[in-house]
Amino acid sequence: MRISDLSRRSGVPVGTIKYYLRERVLPPGTPTARNQAEYGDEHLRRLRLIRALTGLGRMDLASVRDLLPLIEHDRVPLRDLYEAANRAVLPERAPVADAGSLERIRAGVDAFIDRQGWRVASDAPGRDTFVQVVAALQSLGCQLDIDFFAPFAAAAQQVVLRELDLLPADGPVDRDAAAARTVLFEVALGALRRLAQEHHLALRQAGHRDGPGS
Amino acid sequence: MRISDLSRRSGVPVGTIKYYLRERVLPPGTPTARNQAEYGDEHLRRLRLIRALTGLGRMDLASVRDLLPLIEHDRVPLRDLYEAANRAVLPERAPVADAGSLERIRAGVDAFIDRQGWRVASDAPGRDTFVQVVAALQSLGCQLDIDFFAPFAAAAQQVVLRELDLLPADGPVDRDAAAARTVLFEVALGALRRLAQEHHLALRQAGHRDGPGS
Repeated sequence: MRISDLSRRSGVPVGTIKYYLRERVLPPGTPTARNQAEYGDEHLRRLRLIRALTGLGRMDLASVRDLLPLIEHDRVPLRDLYEAANRAVLPERAPVADAGSLERIRAGVDAFIDRQGWRVASDAPGRDTFVQVVAALQSLGCQLDIDFFAPFAAAAQQVVLRELDLLPADGPVDRDAAAARTVLFEVALGALRRLAQEHHLALRQAGHRDGPGS
Repeated sequence: MRISDLSRRSGVPVGTIKYYLRERVLPPGTPTARNQAEYGDEHLRRLRLIRALTGLGRMDLASVRDLLPLIEHDRVPLRDLYEAANRAVLPERAPVADAGSLERIRAGVDAFIDRQGWRVASDAPGRDTFVQVVAALQSLGCQLDIDFFAPFAAAAQQVVLRELDLLPADGPVDRDAAAARTVLFEVALGALRRLAQEHHLALRQAGHRDGPGS
């Protein structure tokens, strides 16, 4: 199809498609004439992936470009693909505590992760983010016992098992779907959290209680 | 304390503090001399809140400024505060499907939310985000039955109840802690999801299975 058809079918403006071509997140089409090229379904699919990652996933284009080779090369282990996708959508690190407090919090977080039975790398991006969250809460006077988060860990595990069940037990993985899912499922979980929050906050304020929170 | 002490205790550079003052997200100190002002613990706390929201929460400063009056005015209902905080951290909307598909997906999402027993506004920001996620997944060939997300809803509800249990049954709410928690808990949940994913993906690839995913 021509670039105008690609634009119509994807909903992405032609100017943006050209920008993606220049930025090398979209591979070039097959040249058919001077200044014309033919695009295929793989371009349409790639455009949809870019829009999901940069829109709902809020990735910047440089992160998408870094992620693409890991999606494209089947020999890259799937865990490296997931780790790169997760790293790209992690919030900025903004240390909010002095080094001493951070060390203490990190030790607590490490022990908490061990108690979940999770074996993860010491430099796993989620570990540092979780440390930063606990530090930020403490700096604002929220002194929560780390085990407050045990139900969060159980909930997280539940949705992850559900996600990983979508991977085939054997055979090739649809790698761009896998990358999109890991980003989009987190957005879905956040959206559902807000909906549950709206409902339950209204319930509480109406004077009802609906059972313990854990 | 002086601005230099405020900077030292918060870890925020003096130039950034001055920027926050100009942008009116940090209230002015009490003038003590020409070009000098005295700052209090409320400034320190505000700085920590701004850093948590803009750093880990990835809010832009304009969103923080819009949120502050809702935090400061006790008469603003707490649910409006939560809604504003949630709205500020929602990803951009980038429609990824034609209007007809979106309507069909929205009807499915509405029915799904009803099945959870949640009563939420028709324009609740989480509702639209969830619709967009399902549309983005479909555009990438992930045709999931909407009830695939039922465990996500259960997990979301579990962490929300835990969060709302931190609110006092009666009496005044610590409103900036409440706003920070609702943003930071979502970041925590995301971080834990990644840790669980790293662990369980490695387990699966090592040929182990650890039970059904739902």
